[in-house]
Amino acid sequence: MKFDTVIYNGLIVTVNPEFDIIERGMVCIGGQTILEVRPMTDNAPLPDAHRLIDACGGIVMPGLINTHTHLPMSLFRGLADDLPLMEWLNDYMFPAEAKHINHESVRYGSLLSCGEMMLSGTTTCCDGYFIEDEVAKAVHKAGIRAVLGHGVIDFPAPGVPDPEENVRTAADYVKKWKNKYPLIYPSIFCHSPYTCSAKTLVKAKETAVSEDILFQIHAAETRTERLQTREEHNKTPVGYLDDLGILDEKTLLVHAVWVDPKDIELISGHGSAISIATESEMKLSSGIAPVQGFIDAGIRVGLGTDGCASNNNLDMFQEMDMTSKIQKVNCLDPTVLDAASVLKLATIEGARSIGLDDRIGSIEPGKDADLIIIDTNAAHMTPLYTPVSHLVYSGAGAVVRDVMVAGRMIVENRKITTFDIDEVMDRTASIAEGIFHG
Amino acid sequence: MKFDTVIYNGLIVTVNPEFDIIERGMVCIGGQTILEVRPMTDNAPLPDAHRLIDACGGIVMPGLINTHTHLPMSLFRGLADDLPLMEWLNDYMFPAEAKHINHESVRYGSLLSCGEMMLSGTTTCCDGYFIEDEVAKAVHKAGIRAVLGHGVIDFPAPGVPDPEENVRTAADYVKKWKNKYPLIYPSIFCHSPYTCSAKTLVKAKETAVSEDILFQIHAAETRTERLQTREEHNKTPVGYLDDLGILDEKTLLVHAVWVDPKDIELISGHGSAISIATESEMKLSSGIAPVQGFIDAGIRVGLGTDGCASNNNLDMFQEMDMTSKIQKVNCLDPTVLDAASVLKLATIEGARSIGLDDRIGSIEPGKDADLIIIDTNAAHMTPLYTPVSHLVYSGAGAVVRDVMVAGRMIVENRKITTFDIDEVMDRTASIAEGIFHG
Repeated sequence: MKFDTVIYNGLIVTVNPEFDIIERGMVCIGGQTILEVRPMTDNAPLPDAHRLIDACGGIVMPGLINTHTHLPMSLFRGLADDLPLMEWLNDYMFPAEAKHINHESVRYGSLLSCGEMMLSGTTTCCDGYFIEDEVAKAVHKAGIRAVLGHGVIDFPAPGVPDPEENVRTAADYVKKWKNKYPLIYPSIFCHSPYTCSAKTLVKAKETAVSEDILFQIHAAETRTERLQTREEHNKTPVGYLDDLGILDEKTLLVHAVWVDPKDIELISGHGSAISIATESEMKLSSGIAPVQGFIDAGIRVGLGTDGCASNNNLDMFQEMDMTSKIQKVNCLDPTVLDAASVLKLATIEGARSIGLDDRIGSIEPGKDADLIIIDTNAAHMTPLYTPVSHLVYSGAGAVVRDVMVAGRMIVENRKITTFDIDEVMDRTASIAEGIFHG
Repeated sequence: MKFDTVIYNGLIVTVNPEFDIIERGMVCIGGQTILEVRPMTDNAPLPDAHRLIDACGGIVMPGLINTHTHLPMSLFRGLADDLPLMEWLNDYMFPAEAKHINHESVRYGSLLSCGEMMLSGTTTCCDGYFIEDEVAKAVHKAGIRAVLGHGVIDFPAPGVPDPEENVRTAADYVKKWKNKYPLIYPSIFCHSPYTCSAKTLVKAKETAVSEDILFQIHAAETRTERLQTREEHNKTPVGYLDDLGILDEKTLLVHAVWVDPKDIELISGHGSAISIATESEMKLSSGIAPVQGFIDAGIRVGLGTDGCASNNNLDMFQEMDMTSKIQKVNCLDPTVLDAASVLKLATIEGARSIGLDDRIGSIEPGKDADLIIIDTNAAHMTPLYTPVSHLVYSGAGAVVRDVMVAGRMIVENRKITTFDIDEVMDRTASIAEGIFHG
């Protein structure tokens, strides 16, 4: 056999540098790798392959990359809405986490989130949470690709009762998971400049540097944070992180809503990346990040859903749609973040922002086969003039039919093949009973 | 038999004045009418009924009401995106309409839109377009409820080559469809204050008044329109319409983005209603309507998707989600338009805005049985603390399992029962081929 899998009869949106779209094409896969991407030839037989998958004229595109989430927080989906960030965090999320986050709840919450992501076309996520060891086990079971950051915060946290041990715990986790499985990339996630001391931030970043891994941090999310950082350090949040030496090419700043042109220059100058999380930033009314400004400054930008307690789902199609639309109306310019640009944020640019663009983010020979097949045979996807438009403006997660990660089918015909999602839904519903009753 | 249909084992979100939610309840229907809404009693047998429908613990709620759309424009979905309103209208939509809108294309475009709406839980829409006679036939075939406005514009339009005949054509259409079918409510839809002369606007409104029907008009959509109306009439668009005597309780102003406090006072004083169309207003970067201000002023407000050429779908779940989030971030206040408030806009308040709240918009005895059943057995709807939160923030159209209009099941287990959607998709795809090639 020449190939392991051939996906044929697909409308291929490659997201390669030329943004090639092949109207009727095939993707040929060997092992975990894309070997060929080409148009179909009339009357030519299909290539030899162990498995032939008919895309039925649907769209074949790179798997979506969610650059910011907190997987176990699916447990808290819809528990508390319509509240300011600080009240939501301090009165609802932190107490619920203190009481209900443990190995079991993290396991099932993470699997639930993995299932939701897979069924809506996300093949890679970038996570930050606690008891991240359990998150990693869940992600490995689910079969998706993930950058998984162990949380660091200067309060007692799930799995880290003594904050003095926070960076050491994260470092131990990183050592355990580094190079263990090819799809899991350990990382360190400092919660924020206002919940971690300067000493903690520096120590955590030093650990990340010595391990050569991604360092993630929420930064410049709210106006309150900006004012508070000005008060305490006479700096912007980004300026403060720069002073501490936190900004480099392996730092991912999450949110970056309250930034000024000098902050953008700093981020750009250090080559740091940004993950925005539009729906969460809107729902918590944090503000609107100047995304076009980031792009214009050459900053790598990815799109995240945030934890689904503040969104309240992990649907990257809806995230693309809302990101494009809010940026347009905020700039009063409908040409801003057109469909192709926002699709790139959710694929190749997301991959760049977490340092994985040599492996994923586009359908190109040599890259890992992380891709999804979209069923376009639906009323809301008809007629079809421009596939990219439909992906961003017409679709939602339910359009996804099949999902492949590193050559392995993890969703087939809308069914997860790697674990029992019904069991996970039952387990999380039980855990939620306990959370609801306090 | 006591009832025609009983829907049982449902989590009933009634949207009645008390906003009652029944955790495990039933809705009993006779003919087109809801007769009883009540909790289930353990061990009590189900009532006698011709048909028993098990909601399987899913949410039973009023059908969604889309207060602004242009049904045939599904033909142009994704044809032209990321453009300013005037360029999009003048260079793409108007020419495409002039060339490709005819009885056949209106019929299939309307059926496609009906199918999309039904499958995503919309039971009533308020439309405005041309060749509205064909729209009405399609809507009747589909079995949804609709206010259908014949378009009036001072240019040659599809089906109205001579603009001198525009109001007369609309009046003839109204006479033909008035009281013909109980689910179809004819209306007159003037395109806008800038495409209709004062004379046309007045004549059209007079016709609507004499027929006692809804008068719809796009108004105050863009900054350009506001500036132009100031230039030409030294008024705001709303002030200008007031001068012409257009504002009364049977006028629905669509968009109302560029309004000032005095405009809001005028609208409120005359008892006119507003349909916002958040996604369209964002995508075309028209602006953000002061929705909370409308509500505070006692104005009836409904939610519309607009035509799906400018959205690009008819999914009212996504419309609710985006409306809540954009209003929150625009006000920098996450308590604005909470989940229950926005759910009301899409149901009972939508019904009020088009004058149908005595019949629809809530699940209450005496009202028509327009309701939908939501499948909550999905990863992205798990766990479930608060159904209203999931409806607004977690769901999208694909969560809809069943749809009933006036006691008749028009979608059963995600399949349309009233017409062949596959045929319609094939026909619209063929029509789109012609549109794409000019």
